[in-house]
Amino acid sequence: MNATHNENGLTASAFLATSVDGFIARDDGGLDWLVGRGETLGDTGYDDFFASVGALVMGRGTHDVVKEFEEYPYAGKRLLILSTSLESTEWPDATVHRSLDDVLETLAREGITKVYVDGGKTVSTFLRAGLLDEITISVAPVLIGSGIPLFGPLEGDVALELTATRELGAGFTQATYRVVRAAS
Amino acid sequence: MNATHNENGLTASAFLATSVDGFIARDDGGLDWLVGRGETLGDTGYDDFFASVGALVMGRGTHDVVKEFEEYPYAGKRLLILSTSLESTEWPDATVHRSLDDVLETLAREGITKVYVDGGKTVSTFLRAGLLDEITISVAPVLIGSGIPLFGPLEGDVALELTATRELGAGFTQATYRVVRAAS
Repeated sequence: MNATHNENGLTASAFLATSVDGFIARDDGGLDWLVGRGETLGDTGYDDFFASVGALVMGRGTHDVVKEFEEYPYAGKRLLILSTSLESTEWPDATVHRSLDDVLETLAREGITKVYVDGGKTVSTFLRAGLLDEITISVAPVLIGSGIPLFGPLEGDVALELTATRELGAGFTQATYRVVRAAS
Repeated sequence: MNATHNENGLTASAFLATSVDGFIARDDGGLDWLVGRGETLGDTGYDDFFASVGALVMGRGTHDVVKEFEEYPYAGKRLLILSTSLESTEWPDATVHRSLDDVLETLAREGITKVYVDGGKTVSTFLRAGLLDEITISVAPVLIGSGIPLFGPLEGDVALELTATRELGAGFTQATYRVVRAAS
C-alpha cells in the first residue's frame, strides 16, 4: 500500500548517525568516533524533529545509557520504555511497557500520532513489525571497520525512498528515507 | 601530512556502491539489491572517473566475476591484477602481479599516476597500506540486513574528509571522501 503512516495512524521515525561503513556504534557500544565531531556540525534538524514528535519510544539499552547522563535530555516529552526487564522508571512522563502491543495501545489511547523511536534494538523491532515510517541518517566522515550495524539482520530487504538529503557541517551528510511497505 | 597523493606520486581511488546499512554485497557476493535499480540513476560520474585513470587495479575475486561477463568492460584500459593464485590473464593490456610492491613498481615504471582500485579486498589492501586517497560511495536506497561490509576490519579508525556530495537518480546519494592520513 506504500502507506505514509501505519494503519493505526501512527508515524514512527528514527533519527540516527552512522559511520561511512554503516555502524551505529563500536562492538562495545562506544560512540567516541561520533561524539567530539559535532562542534562544527551546525543544525542537524534534530531539535525540530524532536519538537515535532508526541512521544519517544526506547528500549532498556538506551534507557541505561541515558540514565548516566548528568542532565535528563527529554524534559517535557512523553516517553515510553519498551522493556521486559526494567522494573520501573523515575523519569517524569515516562512509563515502562512489556510489549510492542502495549506501547501501541498506549499511544493510541493518548492520541499520540508521531513518535521518535530510538535505540538500535527498538528501531529494529519497529522496522521488523512494519511500523517504521521514516529514517533520518547522518553519516560521520570516518571508517571504523567493525561495530554494531545499523539495523542488524532483517527478514528481507527493506526498500527505502529518498525524501531529503543535505550536507551538514564537519563533513557529515544527512539523508531522510521513507520506508516503503509492500502491499499487504 | 594530510597528503593528497601517495609519496610515490600515485593517486589511488575507489568507486563503490553500498546499501544504506553499509554493505557492498550480500554474504554470498550477490548484487541483486543493487543491479536493476540503475535505469533512472542518471550519470553517476563513473564514465568520467574511469576515463581519468591510467590503470585499474583489482584482485582475483573481481577478475573472476568480470571474466563471466559477455563483454569485456575495460577495453583500452591498462589493468593490473593483484593475485597470488591467478596463473595468467588473456585480457588485453593486463598483467598479473604477486605483491602490492610489484604493482606499485610497475605503475611507477609505466608512469601511471592515477589508478582505480576495485574489489573489496584490493581496496582494503590499499587502504590498510595507507595508499588509498579517495573514495566515492554511491548509496542505494535499500536495507539488506547483512552482507559484506564496505572495507571490513581496520587496524584503526580512518578519518575521511567530505569533498563532494550529490543526489543521483532512483534515490541514490553519492559522496566523495578524501582519505586523511595521519602525520608520518
